[in-house]
Amino acid sequence: MTVKRVGFIGLGIMGAPMAANLLTAGFEVTVWNRSPSRTAPLVAAGAAQAGSPAEVAAAAEVTISCVTNSGDVEEVALGPGGVIEGAHPNSVYIDCSTIAPDVARKVAEALAQRNISMLDAPVSGGDIGAKAGTLAIMVGGDPKTLERCLPVLEAMGKVIVRVGPNGAGQVVKLCNQIAGGLNLLAAAEAINLCRKSGVDPARMLEVVSAGAAGSWMLSNLAPRAINGDYAPGFMVDLMQKDLRLVLDAAHETHTPLPGTALVSQLFQAIQAEGRGTDGTQALVDAIAKLGR
Amino acid sequence: MTVKRVGFIGLGIMGAPMAANLLTAGFEVTVWNRSPSRTAPLVAAGAAQAGSPAEVAAAAEVTISCVTNSGDVEEVALGPGGVIEGAHPNSVYIDCSTIAPDVARKVAEALAQRNISMLDAPVSGGDIGAKAGTLAIMVGGDPKTLERCLPVLEAMGKVIVRVGPNGAGQVVKLCNQIAGGLNLLAAAEAINLCRKSGVDPARMLEVVSAGAAGSWMLSNLAPRAINGDYAPGFMVDLMQKDLRLVLDAAHETHTPLPGTALVSQLFQAIQAEGRGTDGTQALVDAIAKLGR
Amino acid sequence: MTVKRVGFIGLGIMGAPMAANLLTAGFEVTVWNRSPSRTAPLVAAGAAQAGSPAEVAAAAEVTISCVTNSGDVEEVALGPGGVIEGAHPNSVYIDCSTIAPDVARKVAEALAQRNISMLDAPVSGGDIGAKAGTLAIMVGGDPKTLERCLPVLEAMGKVIVRVGPNGAGQVVKLCNQIAGGLNLLAAAEAINLCRKSGVDPARMLEVVSAGAAGSWMLSNLAPRAINGDYAPGFMVDLMQKDLRLVLDAAHETHTPLPGTALVSQLFQAIQAEGRGTDGTQALVDAIAKLGR
Amino acid sequence: MTVKRVGFIGLGIMGAPMAANLLTAGFEVTVWNRSPSRTAPLVAAGAAQAGSPAEVAAAAEVTISCVTNSGDVEEVALGPGGVIEGAHPNSVYIDCSTIAPDVARKVAEALAQRNISMLDAPVSGGDIGAKAGTLAIMVGGDPKTLERCLPVLEAMGKVIVRVGPNGAGQVVKLCNQIAGGLNLLAAAEAINLCRKSGVDPARMLEVVSAGAAGSWMLSNLAPRAINGDYAPGFMVDLMQKDLRLVLDAAHETHTPLPGTALVSQLFQAIQAEGRGTDGTQALVDAIAKLGR
Repeated sequence: MTVKRVGFIGLGIMGAPMAANLLTAGFEVTVWNRSPSRTAPLVAAGAAQAGSPAEVAAAAEVTISCVTNSGDVEEVALGPGGVIEGAHPNSVYIDCSTIAPDVARKVAEALAQRNISMLDAPVSGGDIGAKAGTLAIMVGGDPKTLERCLPVLEAMGKVIVRVGPNGAGQVVKLCNQIAGGLNLLAAAEAINLCRKSGVDPARMLEVVSAGAAGSWMLSNLAPRAINGDYAPGFMVDLMQKDLRLVLDAAHETHTPLPGTALVSQLFQAIQAEGRGTDGTQALVDAIAKLGR
Repeated sequence: MTVKRVGFIGLGIMGAPMAANLLTAGFEVTVWNRSPSRTAPLVAAGAAQAGSPAEVAAAAEVTISCVTNSGDVEEVALGPGGVIEGAHPNSVYIDCSTIAPDVARKVAEALAQRNISMLDAPVSGGDIGAKAGTLAIMVGGDPKTLERCLPVLEAMGKVIVRVGPNGAGQVVKLCNQIAGGLNLLAAAEAINLCRKSGVDPARMLEVVSAGAAGSWMLSNLAPRAINGDYAPGFMVDLMQKDLRLVLDAAHETHTPLPGTALVSQLFQAIQAEGRGTDGTQALVDAIAKLGR
Repeated sequence: MTVKRVGFIGLGIMGAPMAANLLTAGFEVTVWNRSPSRTAPLVAAGAAQAGSPAEVAAAAEVTISCVTNSGDVEEVALGPGGVIEGAHPNSVYIDCSTIAPDVARKVAEALAQRNISMLDAPVSGGDIGAKAGTLAIMVGGDPKTLERCLPVLEAMGKVIVRVGPNGAGQVVKLCNQIAGGLNLLAAAEAINLCRKSGVDPARMLEVVSAGAAGSWMLSNLAPRAINGDYAPGFMVDLMQKDLRLVLDAAHETHTPLPGTALVSQLFQAIQAEGRGTDGTQALVDAIAKLGR
Repeated sequence: MTVKRVGFIGLGIMGAPMAANLLTAGFEVTVWNRSPSRTAPLVAAGAAQAGSPAEVAAAAEVTISCVTNSGDVEEVALGPGGVIEGAHPNSVYIDCSTIAPDVARKVAEALAQRNISMLDAPVSGGDIGAKAGTLAIMVGGDPKTLERCLPVLEAMGKVIVRVGPNGAGQVVKLCNQIAGGLNLLAAAEAINLCRKSGVDPARMLEVVSAGAAGSWMLSNLAPRAINGDYAPGFMVDLMQKDLRLVLDAAHETHTPLPGTALVSQLFQAIQAEGRGTDGTQALVDAIAKLGR
């Protein structure tokens, strides 16, 4: 049975363009946002407006949320006026936020008792990917549920991979942040050795990017840093929020992550300068600071 | 004046195929190796054999070395029977080894006094790149000298970038090892969080590689590690040798590199298991060890 | 006005002997514990038993708590049936737990509105110090309140230092855990270099303890570790709980603590072995693990 | 047979007062120093002056050296005009420098072939201990040789411990520097969390020093740092020299030392400010820098 009616909760920097892409793809979209002013552009584009997450869910076969943290997800999914109060049996709740894997599992279990399926489906690709509909989406949950929701996800993303049962999507998103953070540290240390050795880091990036030490960060964010462009991209404060989820998950699974722990401490050096809203390429300056 | 006669000192895993590619490209090649047995295949392929680095240099317009460490380069370049004793004025010495930037500068200065130009030209790409003639070559030295030697380097590599004066090639190679090491640590920590969380790391690599946290290491070496394939690639012992050059250079320039220092300590955890000849993807096991 | 009646909430490994020392010192003591069975020995020794934290506070001029974490303190102080519901105006609440400085400040503010003073007074010295009445007590709060409560605190501790306003006691306790953790890492790395170099670590401890690199940990816990005695002392799981408070406080104040972050990751390596109830000297084995 | 004639090579900040104490104790002392001007005060106090290490050794039953690094020891012991050329069979060479354990063993073996015994006997306690004759001396070598030399060592030090065969003295000295460095990092992180939390670090040091997290560094050097007194004590540049010996020894024995590696990188942050001659308490500022 093809999904036609989709709900969307959370119209921030990521959620708003994701909901817009659902409209463009022809879905009937009902939206809700904590501060109602953000719904106007979506409503102007054809979305219906609901008065609560429960009302969103009541109007939809698939309800998506994209909010800030674990507490927000618990509230919009399970709290008073939450999805659980409005959602029809056999409907689906997809959470695209980045939250603790444990919370994703807990929400899925609570919804399952009402016969509502859940997918944890955090995304990667930033606001650019959200607008372009080219997000990478890492999905945890039941394969059949994913199959049913695939047209919905394909309206928002390009690489959609089921990585395991509920919670696994969040685990993989955390792995994504581990790798992103350490790849940035790689760029930061390489750039600083160049500078302190009197070598132009732009030349270094050119040749190192082409080989076995290349990475997306080295090709894309490192050049911004050496040109003094610290516009996000992805903000340091949000990266820190995610790295704390990583370190919490590491703590619960007893997984020592000494490199990621170091990266998180170094991002604090940027936050200490009041630069939490700079892009993550600012990590280059944490190493620079130490060596000045 | 086109270069025709090229000398090659050091016919190891890298040097032998590099010299072979020079023969294939039509250069007249004279070779020397510390243990003479390794010269036979090259001689069979048309190379002349010399009795010392000095004799190699005497027979060539451009003399290349590819040896193990700073001490080796000082010996073949400046020692008794070294390049400096045989090289003609206006000839060029190109060192493709990975050594300390300071030693590269010192050798260049000593040769300059005899009117011999030098390029430090360390390479990246492994034995596969050496055989295929697709190495990345990071060149420190005079632009005109590079221009003159470009046909020689193009017989061995694909991406050839002048990164600055003498020593800069080595600095950039060290940056390459910084980035490679930390990108591997990124893969190691991500894989271990997956495993300890009960998520298949292969699925994680698939989706993370596609996005902003992707890297060559994540796409190429990480899959080997999760499949238990520890064949080099690039051996842990050699990586450690290079990381010690990095940390020495960081020490001399007062450049704090806390991430790279951590990576080097973790590679020691692999060496402690007697696995110094495994490929560098073994770093995944250093993190695994801690969390077991 | 001299304090005579003291309440005590939380009769665990630390709280029980602290309350017993108050009885010995001649105070009239009223006690409460979540699981009531633990009150019996105190009641047998002369304490009165109350039915809730509020009842304890109603019977006392000074009410002390010694519980596990921030949530517990919020509950016994401010929750239903909590201290705030029973405490008399001008009475004092002293919390000896180790919790987040922010929570200590929040509880103090809530109590101040009912004219109840608070001291945050975390302790150091372990169960041995609690029994012997020789704890170090780091006090945050108003100097006059401390002056009034000094006879009470002196019944439990030997070194009692006011370190600042509310919250400061907890900050200093966190500093204590930072220093303890890194001093243990110092011992761990020194012992492992000895062992891997074939030198008897007992000889090393003997001479290093005597000089500028000496510490309480090196003199007291390190010898236990090299003798294979992992009995607590202070358990790894509790240390980790405290180190997470440290890292949370560091996060909120943007204070990069790369060493402490490393220590916390290494304690996870011990927890991964199911040894969370070993004493903290087990950190020696985290370094040993890496080098095996 | 009681030792009467003692030679002393290397009259620096440590060596000069050590040699003076030998004179005071009644030994006949012959001295040599690379820059001869430093011998004058000792000669004025009764020492004989020799023209080379060999001449020193020829005039002595026990010859002591206290020089800067491994290369210096090799030179004065085994080089042209070195101890080996002048020393009598059955005489003893004691090296009090801090050098690589491997070099200590190598020198001992070379001397043993001429029937000269060696002790590696690095010291701890700084110039204050050297003047006061209260050094801690960690001795590697044959027990009977130590027994014979004990009166000589007792003229210079207070705690004299044989820790194993040749090289073991140096291993233990390296352990001393591991522990000292990490204990300093403990102080640095604790002080910075205090400051960023608005708590007076002097109060913190007072109470933390008294308990299980106390250390010599916390009691002695940390107060200097918070008072802005960076006079050595022991200079950052010398500490770095020693930490590199530690990391070299760790490398050779495959002993991962992630904490010490971090400490060494942080000392580089101080050297980067041109403060290599400050006392090691400057490490407090490396953490401060990061958090500013």
